[in-house]
Amino acid sequence: MTAPDLSNQIIESVPNFSEGRRPEVIEAIVAAIQAPGVLLLDQSSDWDHNRSVVTVAGSPAAVLEGLFRAVTVAAERINLFEHRGQHPRLGATDVVPLVPIRNITLEECADLAAQLGERIGRELELPVYLYEAAARLPERRNLADVRKGEFELLVQEIDQPARKPDFGPARVGPAGAVIAGARQFLIAYNFYLHSADVAIAKDIAKRIRFSSGGLPGVKALGLLVEGQAQVSVNLVDHTQTPLHTLMDKIMELAAQHGTTVEKTELIGLIPEEAILKAAAHYLRLCDFNRLRIIENAIQAAGEKAQSEA
Amino acid sequence: MTAPDLSNQIIESVPNFSEGRRPEVIEAIVAAIQAPGVLLLDQSSDWDHNRSVVTVAGSPAAVLEGLFRAVTVAAERINLFEHRGQHPRLGATDVVPLVPIRNITLEECADLAAQLGERIGRELELPVYLYEAAARLPERRNLADVRKGEFELLVQEIDQPARKPDFGPARVGPAGAVIAGARQFLIAYNFYLHSADVAIAKDIAKRIRFSSGGLPGVKALGLLVEGQAQVSVNLVDHTQTPLHTLMDKIMELAAQHGTTVEKTELIGLIPEEAILKAAAHYLRLCDFNRLRIIENAIQAAGEKAQSEA
Repeated sequence: MTAPDLSNQIIESVPNFSEGRRPEVIEAIVAAIQAPGVLLLDQSSDWDHNRSVVTVAGSPAAVLEGLFRAVTVAAERINLFEHRGQHPRLGATDVVPLVPIRNITLEECADLAAQLGERIGRELELPVYLYEAAARLPERRNLADVRKGEFELLVQEIDQPARKPDFGPARVGPAGAVIAGARQFLIAYNFYLHSADVAIAKDIAKRIRFSSGGLPGVKALGLLVEGQAQVSVNLVDHTQTPLHTLMDKIMELAAQHGTTVEKTELIGLIPEEAILKAAAHYLRLCDFNRLRIIENAIQAAGEKAQSEA
Repeated sequence: MTAPDLSNQIIESVPNFSEGRRPEVIEAIVAAIQAPGVLLLDQSSDWDHNRSVVTVAGSPAAVLEGLFRAVTVAAERINLFEHRGQHPRLGATDVVPLVPIRNITLEECADLAAQLGERIGRELELPVYLYEAAARLPERRNLADVRKGEFELLVQEIDQPARKPDFGPARVGPAGAVIAGARQFLIAYNFYLHSADVAIAKDIAKRIRFSSGGLPGVKALGLLVEGQAQVSVNLVDHTQTPLHTLMDKIMELAAQHGTTVEKTELIGLIPEEAILKAAAHYLRLCDFNRLRIIENAIQAAGEKAQSEA
């Protein structure tokens, strides 16, 4: 296994497989996904959901190859006619999102999702649907809509025009269908208020969430966590609503309620761009980019030296 | 040349050589410094100063080896008895600061400076003085004090007790003496005010600079740059005075003068820790560290995979 060249394009993928109980099947999928140049960042399996989520990263070519190999193994080893679990699913490999990390756009990731889908349809003869940024039909943008009725309903409806796959045959076997797409990196971020009043958190959540007229790319819930009011946010597009915009808006709304943000927490990972943009905003820093950070400059010099060696 | 292992210790060094005119000598020094694992980040030469500044980074062992080789070449090729230039200097390799970058303390860099100095004294038989964090005598902490009277005075005074080198013989040859030490990364950072009144910038500079009772590790000047008042700061220890403390203090002082900070600019590079600390401060973000950044997590996973391969 070789480390990816960070000076070039990097994508992440978080495929979901409909197997969370048989360790040998999960292991085979995780082994398959690690094609040369693919880095395994995380994996988790859930018995009740009967589902595994794997996080990988690398160059687009490496990640696409790893995903194809994992989809192949999942199709061989998982039978949806026998699959039971709490989580909705259409197929053995249920959903494959591609996420831009470095030197690549969301649109390019959507094109990659289509490339992967085309190959799965042609070589594995599985029906493939494209969703979110890769969707070719507006009604397929939303994952929940594509997955409506799950595998069991798709078996009955696959020959209807509305269910025609974007790639592969309009027929469903034991491996079901694959849903491939592209989305921005999702930042899961919590804001704790200096308050024990969950009504304040719920009001702030309602005002910032996009679905009720708030900030683009923001999903939010008001919760009470260990006695403290918390605004729990999924930032699905930090390029539309930067972290500092979210922070400043929540501070403003909290002040209207006579409280403030005591602390915030990040769940999981964050793209470098998102955190650096926040620093530059608050410091009013102009002409800043990641190569002005000495560690990144060292890294880039090392990669340049290696490529010239 | 191999890239450094970023998961381990990284230091930077910015040695200054008393040669800024003969390209073949500068090239020989720069070639020598690039021992295996040493990354050349920058080099610049000045004819008037007759001096070259080279920036390198890598593991402590690699950088120390590269520095020793460069000091050897400089001692062979530069004759201080014939050297003329505007910049003060004691030797062919004039000053060698070691700077902690990752997973290493200033104190460990001071120990490394002593190791390097001991080897230079023993193998090259050059007098070596330790300065700043590596200084063994309080009067040698300040570089300007160590360099007082320059090479020409040192030739006369080397046998005085106060001039006794920390390593090597108490005698001066054509290569002069080497001044080795350790310091924190220096952040050069400018704050532009919404004002054309240089008096405001000068007042703010006076109030923040440590030498007049301001913030620790802060050197500052008030300037007029293209008609705009600018507070120009050298932050010599960002661990003592974080960037956000500096920003907030200058904002507060600017407000007292009825103005504000319009924008800021970074000159050169900044350590990752300094910029991330600013982001976390303003976002009130708890439990954050560099491995929560996806690019860094990918990098670390890649290094782990390589070390296991």
